[in-house]
Amino acid sequence: MGRLSALFDPETVAVVGATDRDGAVGRAIVENLRDEFVGEVVPINPKRDEILGLECYSAVSSAPPIDLAVVVVPPDIVIESIHDIAEAGTKNVVVITAGFSETGSEGAKRERRLREIATEYDLNVVGPNSLGIMSTPNDMNASFGPETALEGSISFMSQSGAFITAVLDWANEQEIGFQDVVSLGNKAVLDETDFIREWGADSETDVIIGYLEGIDNGDEFIRAARDVTDETPIVLVKSGRTDAGAQAASSHTGAIAGSERAYEAGLEQAGVIRANSVQELFDYARALSGLSEPDSDGVAVVTNAGGPGVLTTDAVGDVRLEMADFTDETIDALSEAMPDEANIYNPIDAIGDADADRFGEALDIALADPNVGSAVVVSAPTAVLEYDTLAETVIEKRAEHETPVVTCLMGGQRARAAEEVLREFGIPNYFDPARAVAGLDALARYRGIRDQTSEEPERFDVDRERAREILERAAGRDDNRLGVESMDLLEAYGIPTPDGEIVDDPERALEVAERIDGDVVMKIVSPDISHKSDIGGVKVGVADADVYDAYEDLVARARNYQPDATILGVQVQELVDLDVATETIVGMNRDPQFGPLLLFGLGGIFVEILEDTSVRVAPIGERDAREMIDEIRAAPLLRGARGREPADIEGVIETIQRLSQLVTDFPAILELDINPLVAGPDGVQAIDLRLTVDTETL
Amino acid sequence: MGRLSALFDPETVAVVGATDRDGAVGRAIVENLRDEFVGEVVPINPKRDEILGLECYSAVSSAPPIDLAVVVVPPDIVIESIHDIAEAGTKNVVVITAGFSETGSEGAKRERRLREIATEYDLNVVGPNSLGIMSTPNDMNASFGPETALEGSISFMSQSGAFITAVLDWANEQEIGFQDVVSLGNKAVLDETDFIREWGADSETDVIIGYLEGIDNGDEFIRAARDVTDETPIVLVKSGRTDAGAQAASSHTGAIAGSERAYEAGLEQAGVIRANSVQELFDYARALSGLSEPDSDGVAVVTNAGGPGVLTTDAVGDVRLEMADFTDETIDALSEAMPDEANIYNPIDAIGDADADRFGEALDIALADPNVGSAVVVSAPTAVLEYDTLAETVIEKRAEHETPVVTCLMGGQRARAAEEVLREFGIPNYFDPARAVAGLDALARYRGIRDQTSEEPERFDVDRERAREILERAAGRDDNRLGVESMDLLEAYGIPTPDGEIVDDPERALEVAERIDGDVVMKIVSPDISHKSDIGGVKVGVADADVYDAYEDLVARARNYQPDATILGVQVQELVDLDVATETIVGMNRDPQFGPLLLFGLGGIFVEILEDTSVRVAPIGERDAREMIDEIRAAPLLRGARGREPADIEGVIETIQRLSQLVTDFPAILELDINPLVAGPDGVQAIDLRLTVDTETL
Repeated sequence: MGRLSALFDPETVAVVGATDRDGAVGRAIVENLRDEFVGEVVPINPKRDEILGLECYSAVSSAPPIDLAVVVVPPDIVIESIHDIAEAGTKNVVVITAGFSETGSEGAKRERRLREIATEYDLNVVGPNSLGIMSTPNDMNASFGPETALEGSISFMSQSGAFITAVLDWANEQEIGFQDVVSLGNKAVLDETDFIREWGADSETDVIIGYLEGIDNGDEFIRAARDVTDETPIVLVKSGRTDAGAQAASSHTGAIAGSERAYEAGLEQAGVIRANSVQELFDYARALSGLSEPDSDGVAVVTNAGGPGVLTTDAVGDVRLEMADFTDETIDALSEAMPDEANIYNPIDAIGDADADRFGEALDIALADPNVGSAVVVSAPTAVLEYDTLAETVIEKRAEHETPVVTCLMGGQRARAAEEVLREFGIPNYFDPARAVAGLDALARYRGIRDQTSEEPERFDVDRERAREILERAAGRDDNRLGVESMDLLEAYGIPTPDGEIVDDPERALEVAERIDGDVVMKIVSPDISHKSDIGGVKVGVADADVYDAYEDLVARARNYQPDATILGVQVQELVDLDVATETIVGMNRDPQFGPLLLFGLGGIFVEILEDTSVRVAPIGERDAREMIDEIRAAPLLRGARGREPADIEGVIETIQRLSQLVTDFPAILELDINPLVAGPDGVQAIDLRLTVDTETL
Repeated sequence: MGRLSALFDPETVAVVGATDRDGAVGRAIVENLRDEFVGEVVPINPKRDEILGLECYSAVSSAPPIDLAVVVVPPDIVIESIHDIAEAGTKNVVVITAGFSETGSEGAKRERRLREIATEYDLNVVGPNSLGIMSTPNDMNASFGPETALEGSISFMSQSGAFITAVLDWANEQEIGFQDVVSLGNKAVLDETDFIREWGADSETDVIIGYLEGIDNGDEFIRAARDVTDETPIVLVKSGRTDAGAQAASSHTGAIAGSERAYEAGLEQAGVIRANSVQELFDYARALSGLSEPDSDGVAVVTNAGGPGVLTTDAVGDVRLEMADFTDETIDALSEAMPDEANIYNPIDAIGDADADRFGEALDIALADPNVGSAVVVSAPTAVLEYDTLAETVIEKRAEHETPVVTCLMGGQRARAAEEVLREFGIPNYFDPARAVAGLDALARYRGIRDQTSEEPERFDVDRERAREILERAAGRDDNRLGVESMDLLEAYGIPTPDGEIVDDPERALEVAERIDGDVVMKIVSPDISHKSDIGGVKVGVADADVYDAYEDLVARARNYQPDATILGVQVQELVDLDVATETIVGMNRDPQFGPLLLFGLGGIFVEILEDTSVRVAPIGERDAREMIDEIRAAPLLRGARGREPADIEGVIETIQRLSQLVTDFPAILELDINPLVAGPDGVQAIDLRLTVDTETL
């Protein structure tokens, strides 16, 4: 256990604001604690000597030493109460009281004060606006929820108290148990990252699950979660996925919502398995808490019914798992053991007259196959199949082969007793084959996460000082939008750019053009003109003879378009052969929660119309950069589809990594787009650049 | 009821092959019938006088008149038995016996014989290899399944008997009732289309659901389903969606699988709501059987809990529904009725101390809003909220406003009684907000299906005779692969092609080129050379002066590539300006179940890499053709993205319809691709053509 151990395993718990008034929250908490808690419960109320049969104290300072204080006093005296609690030496506080940042500026001020006290006294504070916390090993229900959790190995946090009460009532019916439960409330002090760290270090927690509407510090969360997922899987529902949902979440928590794409990338990079519904959350958690991960993605399906077998096979096709290819030995053994009418290829259909023994034989043979990493047992009720016996058979075979098995014993009442036995041995039973397969898939996904060694981003040798000078020079111009005139920023970070220069007279333009082999591209350079092409500010394939006139024409067009535009000059640039190269875009914008979000996609019309892009939270290493390319649908274009020569993909990967380093080194870069980054067979070149800089931060 | 009424509502049922031997199927059926059936049960067995207390007859011919015969005799005497049954005047037969087409050639022969007898005597035959049938109004369980269905308004067919037993056990626990249940078996005579028609005409059936592994006659199924869905929604699980699943289904049923894309298009065109899992099937069916369709897609969410409210909002964002925009009147009324801390914008959060009355007020106001077409009530358990009272409130408000409402009363045991009350009034309760929203979505989708008037494909004025001649001429060449030499086939059907001709000497090539304005395109024409570009068989932008040499060169290249190739000549064609036009592909291939499957997509690299195509089963009308264009991701390209002039979309739509007419008129056309069909601002032109013709059929 980590630094929060006393929060979940206190010897004495004080309820500050305890009462015996009917319907009061302060009473509900005392009752919940009194009924079960193995430690001592100390009500605090200056007006009482005794509450619900327990000796009552006027203040924490006059009570015996308190390990955990649960605060339910009115909002205006919360700060004072916590001050007393802290002075008395108590380090762990759960603030139930609402009326903080969720209610407006007065509450927000109060919440800042709470944070200050917590820092001053080094307090662990849950809440405010929390339902409370629970821990099952010591039977502690320090909440005002109507239900107490059963004991188990799932630790559960929620940004919504109602979500906890809704889930517990259902989980108790399903006999799903928990280790610790935390209602995070407003997360003034302790947040999701703290509990992930705590439970990651807790040997009694097999799975961490949560309902979150936002993550406060994305960067820290990613680092903590990556560490924890080496040992403990994390499954989260992050709501506010859709635009309407994000708006609802923001009105519920008052937090500024980060973009869904940033959450998607950030949670993926953090190694979090994301669930989109309550059902998925528990379908995954049940598998992850009871079973080990499969060694491989091959699944064996054993059934007594063709139809459900086909449905299960479809479900396997929908996820990252695959139907295992049986070895010849397996086929021979099945052919020996099964009746003639059986299907001995995967899915194994042991046919309608199969009893538990025949299921057992088929499962035994399948689990011995080296291509089988996990199995699903799917059954329809028949006169000859005893579900209880089948459950015992599955438990036995799973243990013998040390291979994860889930079941889908279809039916209602008929399956209940078997389901209970299976649950005791960690085997989740699902009514729907698709859900059973989703449970196995969560296990396989977790194996992938656990096996992925964390990757330190490569530090390239760059000219950071020069980059700083370029950004400062731009900042000095009192304009936070930068363009091609800052291409040397990319050069300073080793990102190739075409040969060229920005010149401010036509003679010089000609000199540069003559130095460059072949025709050139000429572009007007002005911070006031962002869509250069639209005003005719770009000339492609200008021969040396035409450079002088082209210069004059470009400047005239810019002046004509906007007489007072600042014109920094004309860029004369090597012409890149687009017949053999592909235009891509590499960019970054900053997310309020996760920071620099890198984007990769094909350039031009592809990006705009097909939105075929991939994103990652920076900094990233080579593996993530490579995945960014693989994830876009049009990736085969870069790899050389239709007889084209493949583009320099390694060059694109390196450019993404160098950009990652640049935007990590300079938080002042708010947005940046290299569009296009042209990727040809012989290398990549950044052709155009736009960025926005926070001149204050520099 | 239709022609199958006596199948489901017989007065006398004979069990042919009845027995009292323990564990025998022939005993299980007699028991199932004897226990409940309101009519008369007549066991048939030549060796017995009495079975399980019922008088037994030696044959149907010697028994009282029989309306329905259930046949469980061994496979080798099934045909003989049915002959007797038919001779005795019985028209309805359920063949339980297995050992037909599912077991090999002997069985397939037996099944053909069964089909012949059925035709000869005009019998309604279910099966063979069926679990049996049930009908609840007369308490008839003419199956050997261990469970009997409860009465309700869902009629249910399944190609897997095990799927029925699995579902019934669970449905009985959930108190989900059925009207008729049919295990389709091998579908030798009656198939899914027959039962859809029957139940579509049955006023007691509110929803038709089914589990299918294949559809026998796609064309007929689409027509029947379209008719039926005007009155009755159809929800189907069609398994074998994935490659692995299709393979498993084919090994289970022995049927040749059609392509998943054809099923997807065909079921959509048929107006079928497709479910991907057992859970979805019943989540949809429960909503469709109890509630009317919403008038609009706007959903109101009423909750006592922020978190679940956000989750529900996310779920709405995932489907075709949308969060309703409340009118000012609604906002005013809510602001009046709700406490200050409540959120009165959608989702309405009536906050944690809301009782059933406050829920009722919020629901009342929301349902009166003209922008609200349906509502979800989502609640977390609290001390002040009585779920039973909430259920009554919801029932009352739903009835008052005649607007569909589903509930998500979260929790376990606490929600059971309320759930039961809601169910009685047709309101489905779901544990998961996402599933509640999916239920409402099924209602909205069904409204869309029901409201869509069926569209008669337009018959264009075409030269069918000329098309026939062209195809026959090609057939006469003894080659079933046709190419550009058959472009006049398209012209006969009014599909525009560029000006040009196929010529067989260079002089003539020059004459044609001179007649055409500007440069020309020249292509070698040979049935033996399919990838013309790859061998340099295409020259683009040939000036008149170069035409003679180009002709000689093209022929030489073709000879060089394949000395014995049949060379039909060289096509000299008008050059189409691709700078302002977009290449598309319009094609067709024949699916074994659904027939001609039309395909539309962008041409070239888009089709190959992004697989960005849409499909429909022909014949189709204008609406479907338009949807085919809208469905592709790159559709905005045609509509004029990025400042391009929009392409002639009406021309593309007409071309798709004309192609639909062509491939419907000529079943001998097995495959056809117009690639590219160039769509520019001024019209469309078919540039290249390949087709395969079944020369036997012509």
